[in-house]
Amino acid sequence: MLERIHSPSDIKTLTAEEYQTLAAEIRQTIIETVSANGGHLASNLGMVEATIALHRHFESPHDQIIFDVSHQCYAHKLLTGRYKDFSTLRQSGGISGFTNRDESEHDILTEGHSGSSVSAALGIATANKRKGNNSYTVAVLGDGSLTNGMIYEALNNCAGKNLNLIILLNDNDMSISRNIGGLHEYLSRIRTSKRYYKLKKRTEKILSAIPLIGRPLLMGSKKLKDATKRFFVKNNIFEDLGLIYLGPVDGHNPEKLDIVLEEAKSKHTCCIVHMVTKKGLGYSFSEAEPDKYHGVGAFDKEKGVLPSKNETFSSEVGDILCKESEKDANICAITAAMCDGTGLSSFAQTYSERFFDVGIAEEHAITFASGLAAGGMKPVVLLYSTFAQRVYDQLSHDVAIQKLPLILALDRAGLVPNDGITHQGIFDYNIFSTIPNTEIFSPETYEELQKAFSYGFASNKITIIRYPKGSYSKYPTAHRMIFMGNELAYSENIEAAETVMITFGRLTKTAHEAISLLGRNIGLLKLIQLFPLDIEAIKNLLKNAKNIYFLEEGYRSGGVSEKLAVHLQDKNIKIHAIESFVEHGSLANLNRLCGFTAEQISKKL
Amino acid sequence: MLERIHSPSDIKTLTAEEYQTLAAEIRQTIIETVSANGGHLASNLGMVEATIALHRHFESPHDQIIFDVSHQCYAHKLLTGRYKDFSTLRQSGGISGFTNRDESEHDILTEGHSGSSVSAALGIATANKRKGNNSYTVAVLGDGSLTNGMIYEALNNCAGKNLNLIILLNDNDMSISRNIGGLHEYLSRIRTSKRYYKLKKRTEKILSAIPLIGRPLLMGSKKLKDATKRFFVKNNIFEDLGLIYLGPVDGHNPEKLDIVLEEAKSKHTCCIVHMVTKKGLGYSFSEAEPDKYHGVGAFDKEKGVLPSKNETFSSEVGDILCKESEKDANICAITAAMCDGTGLSSFAQTYSERFFDVGIAEEHAITFASGLAAGGMKPVVLLYSTFAQRVYDQLSHDVAIQKLPLILALDRAGLVPNDGITHQGIFDYNIFSTIPNTEIFSPETYEELQKAFSYGFASNKITIIRYPKGSYSKYPTAHRMIFMGNELAYSENIEAAETVMITFGRLTKTAHEAISLLGRNIGLLKLIQLFPLDIEAIKNLLKNAKNIYFLEEGYRSGGVSEKLAVHLQDKNIKIHAIESFVEHGSLANLNRLCGFTAEQISKKL
Repeated sequence: MLERIHSPSDIKTLTAEEYQTLAAEIRQTIIETVSANGGHLASNLGMVEATIALHRHFESPHDQIIFDVSHQCYAHKLLTGRYKDFSTLRQSGGISGFTNRDESEHDILTEGHSGSSVSAALGIATANKRKGNNSYTVAVLGDGSLTNGMIYEALNNCAGKNLNLIILLNDNDMSISRNIGGLHEYLSRIRTSKRYYKLKKRTEKILSAIPLIGRPLLMGSKKLKDATKRFFVKNNIFEDLGLIYLGPVDGHNPEKLDIVLEEAKSKHTCCIVHMVTKKGLGYSFSEAEPDKYHGVGAFDKEKGVLPSKNETFSSEVGDILCKESEKDANICAITAAMCDGTGLSSFAQTYSERFFDVGIAEEHAITFASGLAAGGMKPVVLLYSTFAQRVYDQLSHDVAIQKLPLILALDRAGLVPNDGITHQGIFDYNIFSTIPNTEIFSPETYEELQKAFSYGFASNKITIIRYPKGSYSKYPTAHRMIFMGNELAYSENIEAAETVMITFGRLTKTAHEAISLLGRNIGLLKLIQLFPLDIEAIKNLLKNAKNIYFLEEGYRSGGVSEKLAVHLQDKNIKIHAIESFVEHGSLANLNRLCGFTAEQISKKL
Repeated sequence: MLERIHSPSDIKTLTAEEYQTLAAEIRQTIIETVSANGGHLASNLGMVEATIALHRHFESPHDQIIFDVSHQCYAHKLLTGRYKDFSTLRQSGGISGFTNRDESEHDILTEGHSGSSVSAALGIATANKRKGNNSYTVAVLGDGSLTNGMIYEALNNCAGKNLNLIILLNDNDMSISRNIGGLHEYLSRIRTSKRYYKLKKRTEKILSAIPLIGRPLLMGSKKLKDATKRFFVKNNIFEDLGLIYLGPVDGHNPEKLDIVLEEAKSKHTCCIVHMVTKKGLGYSFSEAEPDKYHGVGAFDKEKGVLPSKNETFSSEVGDILCKESEKDANICAITAAMCDGTGLSSFAQTYSERFFDVGIAEEHAITFASGLAAGGMKPVVLLYSTFAQRVYDQLSHDVAIQKLPLILALDRAGLVPNDGITHQGIFDYNIFSTIPNTEIFSPETYEELQKAFSYGFASNKITIIRYPKGSYSKYPTAHRMIFMGNELAYSENIEAAETVMITFGRLTKTAHEAISLLGRNIGLLKLIQLFPLDIEAIKNLLKNAKNIYFLEEGYRSGGVSEKLAVHLQDKNIKIHAIESFVEHGSLANLNRLCGFTAEQISKKL
């Protein structure tokens, strides 16, 4: 049936049976594709019926459907003309794993970071009203996004605006991993208290039935119903913020979704539809372990995802933290809904009292950690590089200015495969090297990783340690390790070389290969401490070099190369760095795109 | 009486009469000092009794009192040994206008940006518990801070933690200017509904009195009181988040403050004390117009603050926006609680439908604006440079990646007098020049300011326009204006000079004076477009120059000088920029501190 659906207009009239068939086919396609290409599984399986409902009740792209983070957009893609190409999901030149403005007119925004959907939707809905456009704008968000402050800032600005804005809250009691905080508890209470609506009715009845006592209590307000609600029924937190609240509704029940979405459309004012779904529905493995099947690599769909035993930078960091924490009772780890991704699962179990997952709240993570530091603890905050973009102000204002120590461990730094433009970790150095009192390390090996952490625990400054997704594998080099003051580096064949390549991290191996390909006498300088740079030591190493070739797996403007090149006035300098946003693709393809293969580099040399 | 108070221990036992005298003296001192030095007036006058109460019930610094933003900390300073020096408030080397860790052990953190207090306090309280320290941690915040998402992220993480953490919410119905959003409406409802507590009691009584009907309703829970509360009384939004809520309490009534603070202390779990105060209390002018007396320059305390007729960059920007908006119905202005400060008062009145003050929610401001742009509007977001640090991710993810147009107007860029280390605008260029699809302008004159806005309205990229606090005044120059492609610059005497100074913005005048002092043939190049730089055009202008002297009113690492110097390999280069955080002082003193006087520069040349 799916192959006959070229646009949402093809699903406007479905029989109940067709609806079921379509949902099943969508689930089947998602399971097939994700098991082959990797991607987001459980969250997409939970959103199938809701997405069909959205495209039946709204006219995309006239009505704008915006997915928060947008990892749950697969059914949306399948229903908006992308079934044919869906097997290319997350591959270079193929369908993006997230909504992408360049891919389809149905993808209103290119999304990847949590918490922006309601702000953007409020902006679009405001523009629609201003332009006399009768479109509806729908923001679809998971309950995990509710832990993000920006969602709250946006909700706080929705009150009292008569806009065609509908917020569809997909409450699967999970989000990326188990949910966080007071609001989560609160949602559970709403979700589980079937008594809410019943009790409301009952109270009303009881009180009206008591002439002398009940009546006066209800007289304060004009409408009996309002009065009952105001005084006797616990108001909803969303209603407190001035929104209309509808729900909770079963997100897998087409008829109920039909009713609630039409009700929301009829309001013409900001309303929130609270929908309860089962993450991972329709695939036994993901139903049993939705967390594990949130985002996965390729796997055998008959056997499910098998445990990985591979060492990665993430697992190494987890091990380092466990080891150091055994010796030092002050060490604690903070993350923002990236516990597994940053290798903290074991730490979280062993040192649960010193482990803090604050939800998708990167800003709070840093400032909370600054408070821990002010109280004498040794906090390590672990974030993905791309999400750390959110914490500049907190790192500067709440840590650097206070002269407090903190380790910020940035996972998935550099090029990140498959996830695409919103997930690349190529800006962190550029941003954070503008904060006083900050040092930045980019270890290539696990040994260097350990050294960087040891350095950070002894430091009274901000220590940023950045490392790529994936693992390090040894390769033969004839380098010698140099310790320059606080700075770690190694040099190969530098003093005799006219041309020296300067690089860091994962590209060191490629640089090494490029030099081997050429067979010429080219020096190689690997930087480990990227900021501040020990300029005098580096200049001394390079005193015989005439040509410098910088190779930087990072954005050029404000990058390492620019910072160092300023001090090498007497050399002939070439900078090879990333000069634009980078789309999705395999790591090999991304490297090719950036000219980062040994062949490409050797040609340029 | 104040001169006898050297530490909080001196106010532990006060008679009611002494309390009144002390409060009056504190108010008097604040009015005297602020009218002489400028500073925050109305918010400090509202916090007098509450601050006395805090220092009577808590043992600072053993108990940590953290002020959000901390502009309301004057009474705290007067009670913690700083009365003697208080006349130096906000002056170079004097008492800071905000809490400052370097100034006193009673200032737990150096604060200046809104919304970080609860996160930091939660961190400190967590560390206290972990270390077996029985301290209380108190976060004091205004209702304006409640519009900030980070506060919400922090509140969401407070639930269920048995920490000695007390959040004192100072609700003055105002904050910096009129408050924003659904939560504000909600607070008003709590504040004004005197019926809340009475009704609760009454309901309980009524229901218990009805054996057959009331009883069953109350049986669901063990405790009658809890049950009543859960089912029949509207829960408080803070209680929904899992906090204990106490209040509202009159923040000017010592006895009531005594009771509520002791109750909060007895809870040993996170609680929020909702205190209602009158902003500006005790000075007729600030009582009548608390907004106007939030932050003020020096003024005659008998006459109050007189209206200023001076043109400033802010007022010019307001005029430009009004003028452009008359021609173009799509232009709209967004700010984050900085309406007056960014010169928008008149725009807000004239174009109220296109004006959006989103509260202290910079992140939302940008993403909301991105939605407006996606909907076909032309948004201009106006922020202070220092607060714009918060929007890197939103500018990158929600605007640049989407290829949407947006003007970001950064007021108070460069050195900012008196407010100090947390308010300097010296990092924005460094941060935002790492975002693809972004252009940055630093006009020196109002004419250039207008040109930059005209350019921005025609652009399909992000246009950042940054300008200092204060005004531009003409001075005689023999420069010629050059338009280089998209780039505006002017040059003075360049082709013939061996040495050329390169600068931008406000320092151009000083550079000019430094060159005049020397009387030597030194060229001057002023940049207006700072990013991206038109390297070829600049190189061409400098083709005869041997020595380049960069003069940058901004942070060095990642600054304009570094970006340009990379391309001037054949020159002898000197970079004169700011290399650390900058403390408070007058503009003249700050310039001297940074070596930015004409005399200092001419000596270095």
